[in-house]
Amino acid sequence: MGEKVTVCEVGPRDGLQMAKTRMPTAIKSRWIAAMAAAGVPEIEVGSFVPPKLIPQMADTAEIVRRAVLLPNVLIVALAPNLRGAQAAYEAGAHRISVPVSVSEGHSRANLNRTPAEQVAEVARVVAWVRDQPRKMEVEGACSTAFGCSFDGRIPTASGLLEAGVDMVGLADTVGYAHPGLIREVVRAVRAEIGEKLDGLHLHDTMGLGLANALAGLEEGVRNFDAALAGLGGCPFAPGASGNIVTEDLVFMLESMGFETGIDLQKLIASRAILAEGLPAEERHGHVPVAGIPKTFRAAA
Amino acid sequence: MGEKVTVCEVGPRDGLQMAKTRMPTAIKSRWIAAMAAAGVPEIEVGSFVPPKLIPQMADTAEIVRRAVLLPNVLIVALAPNLRGAQAAYEAGAHRISVPVSVSEGHSRANLNRTPAEQVAEVARVVAWVRDQPRKMEVEGACSTAFGCSFDGRIPTASGLLEAGVDMVGLADTVGYAHPGLIREVVRAVRAEIGEKLDGLHLHDTMGLGLANALAGLEEGVRNFDAALAGLGGCPFAPGASGNIVTEDLVFMLESMGFETGIDLQKLIASRAILAEGLPAEERHGHVPVAGIPKTFRAAA
Repeated sequence: MGEKVTVCEVGPRDGLQMAKTRMPTAIKSRWIAAMAAAGVPEIEVGSFVPPKLIPQMADTAEIVRRAVLLPNVLIVALAPNLRGAQAAYEAGAHRISVPVSVSEGHSRANLNRTPAEQVAEVARVVAWVRDQPRKMEVEGACSTAFGCSFDGRIPTASGLLEAGVDMVGLADTVGYAHPGLIREVVRAVRAEIGEKLDGLHLHDTMGLGLANALAGLEEGVRNFDAALAGLGGCPFAPGASGNIVTEDLVFMLESMGFETGIDLQKLIASRAILAEGLPAEERHGHVPVAGIPKTFRAAA
Repeated sequence: MGEKVTVCEVGPRDGLQMAKTRMPTAIKSRWIAAMAAAGVPEIEVGSFVPPKLIPQMADTAEIVRRAVLLPNVLIVALAPNLRGAQAAYEAGAHRISVPVSVSEGHSRANLNRTPAEQVAEVARVVAWVRDQPRKMEVEGACSTAFGCSFDGRIPTASGLLEAGVDMVGLADTVGYAHPGLIREVVRAVRAEIGEKLDGLHLHDTMGLGLANALAGLEEGVRNFDAALAGLGGCPFAPGASGNIVTEDLVFMLESMGFETGIDLQKLIASRAILAEGLPAEERHGHVPVAGIPKTFRAAA
């Protein structure tokens, strides 16, 4: 048995919110169920944001309520603030991911708050969540963690630690990171917050997504976000591709002897549901085109 | 100044020989000149094989004769045997790359010889080349070096060493390798032939191309083949993409602080000539689509 690596599928959240059209709720639910049945252990299924801002996410409560009934999968929802966290809790989410922009500018544009103000919001979220009868994990998701502004990372990560989050993820929001930077930032943040640094969220804007994942893997990261068919995009680079491709990531990890628990064939088959729900969206990925080689190790 | 990494552009050889149509000689020459002008230090411009087998390579002698007049670029040609080596020498090639399949089956199918017979041919090539008044380098290029047959690698590499080649390259011909395997094979071969192990030739069939390059880089490899726009393909995986994309590789290397000597903007501009010469061919690559970020370091 190889070492375990957890892949968190974020297509239904980070992928669909960038999509040109809206995926019908029934198809979205079916797609999430298919990926869970393929063994995907964590799925970020939606975002509790005002439907006016992101209409694609208007059905998130309904999607979460259905998804938490699926066996053997941890259901994550994005919640930008206490209000979103409360809605996620009510719908039954197992974990919320609360974004905190490391960059002052990105933070103001996206959340209308400074990074420090958003860290304070995370503390309020954690305090509220801890008061509830049911356990719900809280992840602090540091966006633009690999941007050119080096200042914000460490205070943000340590602020999240103090705020009491269960885990911290680092996101290469625009996808401009390179393997050397991944190593450097992961090391620096781990020196500050230790094992609370849990995951990496990488985009394939420059084609370096899997190389960046490898760099993280070699630094000991064992949790990676990815999106089926590389859904998503980068608002700062129109036409650029999105999240790293789950299918290709799983192929790399399993080929290297890591255990993801994912049946690659079934995962690839779930692309058909995605195509049905979002026929106009471009689907990326190499393994689905080339086919799984006969030499590929059988999935766990 | 960062450490130097040499990128060898193989599009005009490995890319064009898989192309559906034939690129006119004048355009091919112009394309090669544009890449050389962008600072690409080595270009594999063609293949001395019977035109009946690969009609796209029929003009290789003419292409080499023109290319060697370009300043500051080392011109490589593939030569599968002594006859090809003699033609390459006559045309003025600076280096020939002689393929040797590590796999028995691939070797018989491709070269109609066993690996040992082909190593013996390489020895004849080297002996002939060393007798000529002009210096021409000879590279032994081990194809299918990352296939599932583990047996052939070491004898082939050490056979090439004994045959007297200047350098040995390892090729992931079908593109099924993963970073762990790259590390393992590079280490094993280097233990056998030391610094004669010079370069890696990687395909992006599974999307792992740059991750594999990173693994090689971390093992100390400092010479990588790549093709502009990821030209090429894998005959065993129809529809799969080809060589690793030169533009994305250069972006990764330069971002990490290595010096390639290549002006990325000019390199990307040369895609226009490729499009002119092969309008029907799919052009891959992330950096050309996303655009070079403002934060990217200025090329050397």
